[in-house]
Amino acid sequence: MENERFPNEESLDPEDWKAFRGLAHRMLDDMLDNQQHVRQRPVWQPVPPEVKAFLKQPLPLEPQPHEQVYEDFLHYVLPYPLGNPHPRFWGWVMGNGTPFAAMAELLAATMNPNMGGAEHAANYVEAQVIDWLKEMFGYPAGASGLLVSGASMANLVGLTVARNTLAGYDIRTQGLRAGPRQMVLYASQEVHSCVHKAVELLGLGRDALRLIRVNEAYEMDLDALQQAIAADRSAGLQPFCVVGTSGTVNTGAIDDLQGIAEICRNEGLWFHVDGAIGAVAILSPEVGSCVEGVHLCDSLALDLHKWMYMPFEAGCVLVRSEKDHRMAFSLTPEYLAHADRGLASGPVWFSDYGVQLSRNFRALKVWFSIKENGSLKFGRMVEQNISQAQYLAKLVDDTTVLERIAPVSLNIVCFRFNPGGKSNEELNEINQELLIQLHESGIAAPSYTTLDGNYVLRVAITNHRSKKEDFVLLVRTVVEIGLQLIDHPKMIG
Amino acid sequence: MENERFPNEESLDPEDWKAFRGLAHRMLDDMLDNQQHVRQRPVWQPVPPEVKAFLKQPLPLEPQPHEQVYEDFLHYVLPYPLGNPHPRFWGWVMGNGTPFAAMAELLAATMNPNMGGAEHAANYVEAQVIDWLKEMFGYPAGASGLLVSGASMANLVGLTVARNTLAGYDIRTQGLRAGPRQMVLYASQEVHSCVHKAVELLGLGRDALRLIRVNEAYEMDLDALQQAIAADRSAGLQPFCVVGTSGTVNTGAIDDLQGIAEICRNEGLWFHVDGAIGAVAILSPEVGSCVEGVHLCDSLALDLHKWMYMPFEAGCVLVRSEKDHRMAFSLTPEYLAHADRGLASGPVWFSDYGVQLSRNFRALKVWFSIKENGSLKFGRMVEQNISQAQYLAKLVDDTTVLERIAPVSLNIVCFRFNPGGKSNEELNEINQELLIQLHESGIAAPSYTTLDGNYVLRVAITNHRSKKEDFVLLVRTVVEIGLQLIDHPKMIG
Repeated sequence: MENERFPNEESLDPEDWKAFRGLAHRMLDDMLDNQQHVRQRPVWQPVPPEVKAFLKQPLPLEPQPHEQVYEDFLHYVLPYPLGNPHPRFWGWVMGNGTPFAAMAELLAATMNPNMGGAEHAANYVEAQVIDWLKEMFGYPAGASGLLVSGASMANLVGLTVARNTLAGYDIRTQGLRAGPRQMVLYASQEVHSCVHKAVELLGLGRDALRLIRVNEAYEMDLDALQQAIAADRSAGLQPFCVVGTSGTVNTGAIDDLQGIAEICRNEGLWFHVDGAIGAVAILSPEVGSCVEGVHLCDSLALDLHKWMYMPFEAGCVLVRSEKDHRMAFSLTPEYLAHADRGLASGPVWFSDYGVQLSRNFRALKVWFSIKENGSLKFGRMVEQNISQAQYLAKLVDDTTVLERIAPVSLNIVCFRFNPGGKSNEELNEINQELLIQLHESGIAAPSYTTLDGNYVLRVAITNHRSKKEDFVLLVRTVVEIGLQLIDHPKMIG
Repeated sequence: MENERFPNEESLDPEDWKAFRGLAHRMLDDMLDNQQHVRQRPVWQPVPPEVKAFLKQPLPLEPQPHEQVYEDFLHYVLPYPLGNPHPRFWGWVMGNGTPFAAMAELLAATMNPNMGGAEHAANYVEAQVIDWLKEMFGYPAGASGLLVSGASMANLVGLTVARNTLAGYDIRTQGLRAGPRQMVLYASQEVHSCVHKAVELLGLGRDALRLIRVNEAYEMDLDALQQAIAADRSAGLQPFCVVGTSGTVNTGAIDDLQGIAEICRNEGLWFHVDGAIGAVAILSPEVGSCVEGVHLCDSLALDLHKWMYMPFEAGCVLVRSEKDHRMAFSLTPEYLAHADRGLASGPVWFSDYGVQLSRNFRALKVWFSIKENGSLKFGRMVEQNISQAQYLAKLVDDTTVLERIAPVSLNIVCFRFNPGGKSNEELNEINQELLIQLHESGIAAPSYTTLDGNYVLRVAITNHRSKKEDFVLLVRTVVEIGLQLIDHPKMIG
């Protein structure tokens, strides 16, 4: 009947739902197989030229059949992953994802709510997982929070609240130039680059971020911090914030958070913690004490897609003062005015607490993951990864041709191949080539960093699929490749 | 054997893959049913108190069975949606999502790459969809782009590039206070609130955003723009950017983009376009001319989860000068240094072009959607929605007790119930109550706005499932509720 009246109307739904359903079930089986058998595949493989050529084809004007699009995916995309779901991926700091959370993404995209606000169940799910995260990290029940894309955004939100709250005038309206003095903030030299980015974005200028030197354990030197604050005050500047790091990206070092909290209290400064990498250690009764003080901060950045193993993107920012948080971001023009009843009501409008107005239902995968595992299991998994780091460190220490660089803090182990009799420059060249050949072998994927001029392999274990035997295989392969390289020096450099 | 050596290792994978697979297929069938039969359900329903109570339960410490978690979802979450996938949801400006793109989200979460950079196929997929979007919007092949969460972020990225490029000094290092003059920018009074937010975040202060008056069609008055620029220059300020809007949120009005482009060229200003709502009209041969000039801007913000109907989150920013884009955001410390071979190589590191370092594979749903439909079909769907807006406007105009407010521009229709003989104040009260009762009826979900003090129902049609008969039902229901309300005035206010 509808079609009789308006014959030409079309939609983006499948024309043949039955055929689509068949394909969708095949896709699901393929994805489950992919996850179940990930251990049998290489961690990583180079992307072949024909794949790159295919992914250069111009804009399609006409529809392509669903089956064809999926075949393209199976042929050109799925076989050449980054590799982080694999049990022997330890590059940068990334989680694996889980099958249950992947299903949650399908459910979330089906419901497809906009989580900016309004009255619907999904918003209560996000409010609940924020409450759970407050509980996990020892934050007061009255604190506020927001799920965000990751720690880059969580740090940006936290620092925005800090800047706007401590400016001492209406900085949102008048801007930075209206302030009486240059605002400055502090972090250790090992602070993550996203804090630099946030400081630039906020208009403070990177020079405003004072990088405090670290001690031999790569932790912020608090005497140097005190001196820098005093010097800036003498120079007529306006200190407003200290960024503590709970797990640096290079070595997993944890700043003395209690010490920083005390300094911030005495100095009247905002205390922000970048807990992207290490804060979750708090869930472990065994090692949680290493992040003592993480609950003392005014704002806390978390990355659930790292050591809580959820799929990208899942970050969270918590702010002790709900009011400060809201006052830094809320603006409610007419077309977003909140009503008392109906669709446009609702107790929490998440768009009042961050940059985004349209927001997806990432809360569902967090809800699924926390319910699936319970917080205690996350604590055990953290302990498992830390014990694997200790185990790897021991394997490295017991192997003559390997040299550990930097103490193991949390879950990060930095080491290099060093057979003796080589200069640091030669060792850098050997280890660079070694890492590339290790990647190309498909056996394991650490990343690398440079510590005091030394190029080192960096194994960051935020991997729920790793087993101790995986580290045995890593060490064996590194030694094999390294010895081959010094036998065939032409392959290097 | 593994388990013999290290008996206590556990993972977050299902213990019983077979049982998990069975549940996953059931979930998939439920989600397909949900999408296939969305028309049979109410658009929206109030969230019952027992749901809110359930979603207040404290942090689970122990694991819950997958089946139980899913049952909780089915019982407490799925039945109380925001409603935007429904054919009669026209609130704010939201897309529906599609079944194929929802499947892409499952695939993306399974592969779970971090799209910050490195060498893997997914990055080439994102590069390809950015090329396709450049082609769609008439942008040069050498331009750069980035998929982002939505237009709030796309506008923020565009304005950051504008600020950093036109500052005239190293603003990233030195900050806003080091500049010789206050930087100011321009947009119409109808500009979206996210531009206010971006300007605040960037430290410019909201006062730096000059709101130019609009004409009777709600388009920026270019004479007033010229005068404002001249006045600011005379006052010693530094104009740097004009933000044009291609589809305002209130009425769908489109600024004279060619006119703004010319002014920017003459004045040496950055031209940014917020195309979140209307830019996609360019895909329609029939109505594309209404957004003429959208390709002339220096940066363009797009929202693919609006009028391209993709699931949240899918935004995109395009920047004409790749170098300006990269110079505004790239910072490459040691642990992100890019290699020539191996996992850490790769031609494009998307983290060099925006705020996020960890990024998910949202590109896959964009790739799936564009391949599934082809660009021509998106153009037809835009035309369909515009013709539905015209159809609704005619229905409203032909109904004595309804009054259309504002011209129909693009796909947005604003009207109110007005039986005659009532003051504007009374009409505002009647229409407020009418909208809530319309939501509660589950029949249709427009949102509302205020135009010249009048509370009006606002129907924004970015809905691939709407049919013309849905607008017939809307008008009939609005009239029914309105007439009931004036018969029973106690129900109001």
